[in-house]
Amino acid sequence: MQVDDLVLVSVDDHVVEPPDLFEGRLSAKAAERAPFVRKLENGREVWMFEGTALPNVGLNAVAGRVPEEYGLDPLAFSEMRPGCYDIHERIRDMNVNGVLGSLNFPSLAGFTGQLFYSCDDKDIAIELLRAYNDWHVEDWCGVYPGRMIPLAVPPIWDAELMAAEVRRMGEKGCHAVTFSENPEKLGRPSWHSDYWDPFLAACEEAGTVICLHIGSSSQTVITAMDAPIDTMITLQPMNIVQCAADLVWSPVFRKFPRLKVALSEGGIGWVPYFLERLDYVYQHHRAWTNQDFGDKLPSQVFNEHVLTCFIDDAVGIEVRHHLNPDHIHWECDYPHSDSTWPYAPEMAMKYLEGLPDEDIDRITHRNAIANFGFDPFAHIPREQATVGALRAQATDVDTTPVSHGTGKFQEEGIVTAMTLAERMARK
Amino acid sequence: MQVDDLVLVSVDDHVVEPPDLFEGRLSAKAAERAPFVRKLENGREVWMFEGTALPNVGLNAVAGRVPEEYGLDPLAFSEMRPGCYDIHERIRDMNVNGVLGSLNFPSLAGFTGQLFYSCDDKDIAIELLRAYNDWHVEDWCGVYPGRMIPLAVPPIWDAELMAAEVRRMGEKGCHAVTFSENPEKLGRPSWHSDYWDPFLAACEEAGTVICLHIGSSSQTVITAMDAPIDTMITLQPMNIVQCAADLVWSPVFRKFPRLKVALSEGGIGWVPYFLERLDYVYQHHRAWTNQDFGDKLPSQVFNEHVLTCFIDDAVGIEVRHHLNPDHIHWECDYPHSDSTWPYAPEMAMKYLEGLPDEDIDRITHRNAIANFGFDPFAHIPREQATVGALRAQATDVDTTPVSHGTGKFQEEGIVTAMTLAERMARK
Repeated sequence: MQVDDLVLVSVDDHVVEPPDLFEGRLSAKAAERAPFVRKLENGREVWMFEGTALPNVGLNAVAGRVPEEYGLDPLAFSEMRPGCYDIHERIRDMNVNGVLGSLNFPSLAGFTGQLFYSCDDKDIAIELLRAYNDWHVEDWCGVYPGRMIPLAVPPIWDAELMAAEVRRMGEKGCHAVTFSENPEKLGRPSWHSDYWDPFLAACEEAGTVICLHIGSSSQTVITAMDAPIDTMITLQPMNIVQCAADLVWSPVFRKFPRLKVALSEGGIGWVPYFLERLDYVYQHHRAWTNQDFGDKLPSQVFNEHVLTCFIDDAVGIEVRHHLNPDHIHWECDYPHSDSTWPYAPEMAMKYLEGLPDEDIDRITHRNAIANFGFDPFAHIPREQATVGALRAQATDVDTTPVSHGTGKFQEEGIVTAMTLAERMARK
Repeated sequence: MQVDDLVLVSVDDHVVEPPDLFEGRLSAKAAERAPFVRKLENGREVWMFEGTALPNVGLNAVAGRVPEEYGLDPLAFSEMRPGCYDIHERIRDMNVNGVLGSLNFPSLAGFTGQLFYSCDDKDIAIELLRAYNDWHVEDWCGVYPGRMIPLAVPPIWDAELMAAEVRRMGEKGCHAVTFSENPEKLGRPSWHSDYWDPFLAACEEAGTVICLHIGSSSQTVITAMDAPIDTMITLQPMNIVQCAADLVWSPVFRKFPRLKVALSEGGIGWVPYFLERLDYVYQHHRAWTNQDFGDKLPSQVFNEHVLTCFIDDAVGIEVRHHLNPDHIHWECDYPHSDSTWPYAPEMAMKYLEGLPDEDIDRITHRNAIANFGFDPFAHIPREQATVGALRAQATDVDTTPVSHGTGKFQEEGIVTAMTLAERMARK
């Protein structure tokens, strides 16, 4: 298989919500309370909600910027590629990158819908959340059939409401929901409680994948305030191992045998070690910890339930025989700074080269299609869905990196968590 | 190679300090303040220091207990195998397990010498610490030449004192020192400061390995208080990845090019993923984070400086071609609950089988001998150092698991961090 023959479906990208997303979708009362974009005197734009300015219009939406400016969040929509928030431009950016399909996590709403959770008036909160999900499925995912995998945001303050939203969105063809890798860190019950059972049951019944993105517990891995920021960037994906361990040892998978969860942006190269460790702990310690997986091993339970996801992971491909081959997914991460855009096909081919075509197809798109109830080929014939065919439609898309000149880090030496916090305070 | 032909040197075991360890080693003033063992009315024994009872006489020293009691710390010396604290019995327990050499971390003193750091009178603290190290090198490691790799405890309150202690111990043939994976978590400067430079320079100069044991930041990985304790046990080794990332991105290795650190009990199967991630972050983000490794990649820097260590890790052996073959070390972890004692040779052979003899020898003992300045064959001919030869000397050692009947966990269902905390409070 050549680069041009790949068919790429990414199960981890990000939408930056446009300022008009709630327009025409709310009652007068909710419209009054809805988040809106305010332009500040210094040209910066912020989302306002409940009297508070939210820190970024688009967290780390740096696609197309020069790498010297990667650590800077965009301060205004004008600092982003329009593909971040405009669906027509997004499709063009996908085409130039040879990407057929894409699942998009929220920015404004938070990875776990923390925006809506933060609203004290829960009648308003649920109306806003439903409008948000409707916008996502209709205006973001519905305009170009066969291109976008929809992803719902759940009302995490009420497990019954979550179940209802999963069912409602399922009826609209949305079979993925974003949630937190560690809900306890958000002040909610942990995976070990039975609080989430109605939500989990609804996901199992509707065939809805629960997508757990790295950072979705709102905690970043800061080893020390003076640690170079590279430390945090290195650790953040693998840190989702904590969620994986929580889930396997919790009652969740044993209670909901058909449930699927995705470890979004978690990488895969560390997973075989983790599976071996799970089984060692089970065999070595179960006599006193009282764990019981019946006739299975915990590694099997992981492989039955967990969808693994990676951006760039040659080691993971090397050791993939330890993983469920139907559960490995490729990701692009547009427009975040770890993304391989616009060279995703070439980057992917580096580690896919030499694999059987069957394996390449599973990793690049067939698993995403099967697990997320996505059917692109109903709309786009396969021969028009390849990297070569999509790129041929996008010869006019300019991918030259641009500078927005909003201050680089060169003068500050090694960038640490403290450097970033200080810059944020100066903004 | 057959099981009986293996030569095993473990770079991670634990000594439980005997009650008389300070005897005859202190001035009258220090002797008055030294830790001592008190027997309580309920038969329990505790170390007393500075007016406080320390929680355990031997943290997790469960070797030889029935697995149903693994989670229970021994409440008295009588609940431990004498091999935990008696050097003559320890050698017999090593022989029956076919283990030639062993490096022992402290129990009472803490992985980073926190015991001495906790003493406000630093004149007393340093006298106690030096007496402790003298006891370790003379009475624990000096009695059976060629069997024990000595390990010093550092005075972490003063980097110059640390340097002096490293040099003092180096002169006694001790070329390993225990330290914290994250000193900031102990209220000390992080790896990123230059505070530790005198200590690091002394280690480099004396050829002393800095051993960073999992848990040595005094932090355990608790995802949620109601998480099964299996979660923490699964995660604790791999959590040392945070320390690995800290070190690679810190100035430490670039400032001290011959320094070696060991990630004790960290496992190795996750390392190849981590190395790939380091290089991806470097190549993808260095333009704004301002990192500079000259003509090297961060993965190379890791492989030059970091000694990797594992107890049982078939995946790690499979992917070892990504690691420095001269830096991989086997561990036994006697007498902790993750230990493979007394079946270590058989457990090791499961994943070593089929490897070239050269590779097996490096992993099981040659790397430990080279990196820790240990010379067992000066005292014991190689043919008397094999599993088969050592076991032949120990045919009278009884390894039958025993119960101390101090309350199992069966009645409590799944054991969580909360369960353990409540039991500890009831003691």
